[in-house]
Amino acid sequence: MKIALIGAGNLATQLGYALVESHHSVVQLYSRTQQSAAEAAERLGCPFTTDIQAVTAEADLYILAVKDSVLPHVAKELVSGPRRHALFVHTAGSMPMELLHEAGAHRYGVFYPMQTFSKSRKTDFRTIPCFIEAGTPADSDLLEQLARDLGTVSYPLSSEHRRQLHLSAVFACNFVNHCYVMAERIVREAGLPFEILLPLIDETASKVHCLPPVSAQTGPAVRYDENVMAGQLKLLESFDETMADTYRILSKGIHQTALNTQKNDDTITT
Amino acid sequence: MKIALIGAGNLATQLGYALVESHHSVVQLYSRTQQSAAEAAERLGCPFTTDIQAVTAEADLYILAVKDSVLPHVAKELVSGPRRHALFVHTAGSMPMELLHEAGAHRYGVFYPMQTFSKSRKTDFRTIPCFIEAGTPADSDLLEQLARDLGTVSYPLSSEHRRQLHLSAVFACNFVNHCYVMAERIVREAGLPFEILLPLIDETASKVHCLPPVSAQTGPAVRYDENVMAGQLKLLESFDETMADTYRILSKGIHQTALNTQKNDDTITT
Repeated sequence: MKIALIGAGNLATQLGYALVESHHSVVQLYSRTQQSAAEAAERLGCPFTTDIQAVTAEADLYILAVKDSVLPHVAKELVSGPRRHALFVHTAGSMPMELLHEAGAHRYGVFYPMQTFSKSRKTDFRTIPCFIEAGTPADSDLLEQLARDLGTVSYPLSSEHRRQLHLSAVFACNFVNHCYVMAERIVREAGLPFEILLPLIDETASKVHCLPPVSAQTGPAVRYDENVMAGQLKLLESFDETMADTYRILSKGIHQTALNTQKNDDTITT
Repeated sequence: MKIALIGAGNLATQLGYALVESHHSVVQLYSRTQQSAAEAAERLGCPFTTDIQAVTAEADLYILAVKDSVLPHVAKELVSGPRRHALFVHTAGSMPMELLHEAGAHRYGVFYPMQTFSKSRKTDFRTIPCFIEAGTPADSDLLEQLARDLGTVSYPLSSEHRRQLHLSAVFACNFVNHCYVMAERIVREAGLPFEILLPLIDETASKVHCLPPVSAQTGPAVRYDENVMAGQLKLLESFDETMADTYRILSKGIHQTALNTQKNDDTITT
């Protein structure tokens, strides 16, 4: 398939690599800014443009991997005249497929690979799930085939469910990573490097491969160890007010979950 | 060394296994409750008691692995008459070494293996760091040797710094796991199993082996994508008020961190 890649961010770059490796032809890359466009295009070995009106009309598939906030606008500008009959898909977890239809596309869909992407860290698409939606069964089949070409497993998912899935990914990834950020700040206060936490971080992630997260919970909040919690809160209050608030609300959530679990099955993991 | 294990929780059980495997002799296990004591002792193949006054006087080392809230009380009851001259250590991240001295011990210390323990999941001590403190250099050497016997790397650490380290572990493990709990609740609403999130969870943990957590951050809050954030918050508000509050405070923290990082090095990872 001849593919035009709209965007030069982390996801666009990693998807570009995977497309090239699976012998699809990335015929052009578009990004608003010269530097990002040039860098990403060089990595992928394809031509680029920073003028949306100059985007090729020759592609079979246009993949819009841009920020959610600009996606409707970019879609409207892109779907016009000679390109109108190609297939347009976006990669956004939280955005409805419908916006592409509203932008004037005749054929449209969503291709949402659920992962956290970095420019500098190569993504192995074979290990991540892709969620697919399309306006017609034929385009859905086409996107499923694309997923197979990349070596990923794909699942059909509605816009509404994808929005929920994306929200759960915010908790499982962005919020988890922010917990790492806060942990790093504290551990450095103790004169220790962040790396000292890596075995704990790895085991915490590994555990939920075998145990449901609720059963894997440990620590002072699940035991509701008020002395420890008061002491830790005092330490945090002298340090950073937002982190103290975060401690309060997460401890409350852990404790509520533990109480509900206890109610439901009359056992509690400590 | 002849070791008496005081406690039958997750940490006591896993430490017991590791001691037995490294050919130390666990001469007795104490737990307040008959069932926990009997179960843990059977697993370790050692005698047990539920009467603290009946704890052996023959051990060289008493390891107190009990809940923080009962630790001072258990220490006071344990350190008496015939046992007074042995070495007493506790395993608590947040409790000062001094409490063992105050309980009357002549020789005392702390042996804090930083990990999340489950009864059902065997802990590999070789992969986790242990933090050591002792009243004398001789006892510190002894605890270092014990750590080496278990195959772990040990670090000397003061009570004050250990308290900070333990707090950072609460963020890196307990709070992270609670994010998994919340993610599971949401993903089930979308009709998907928790397992669909595992590749994302694994990559989020792997990433911080190569990138500082601040640079690894992605998602709507770091981009301050207000549309997405407002939509996600609305979804959560109809679902669970504590989770909505959690979303608000973690997003605020991510955004503040991104702004500070930008200020500091004039680059921002999106």
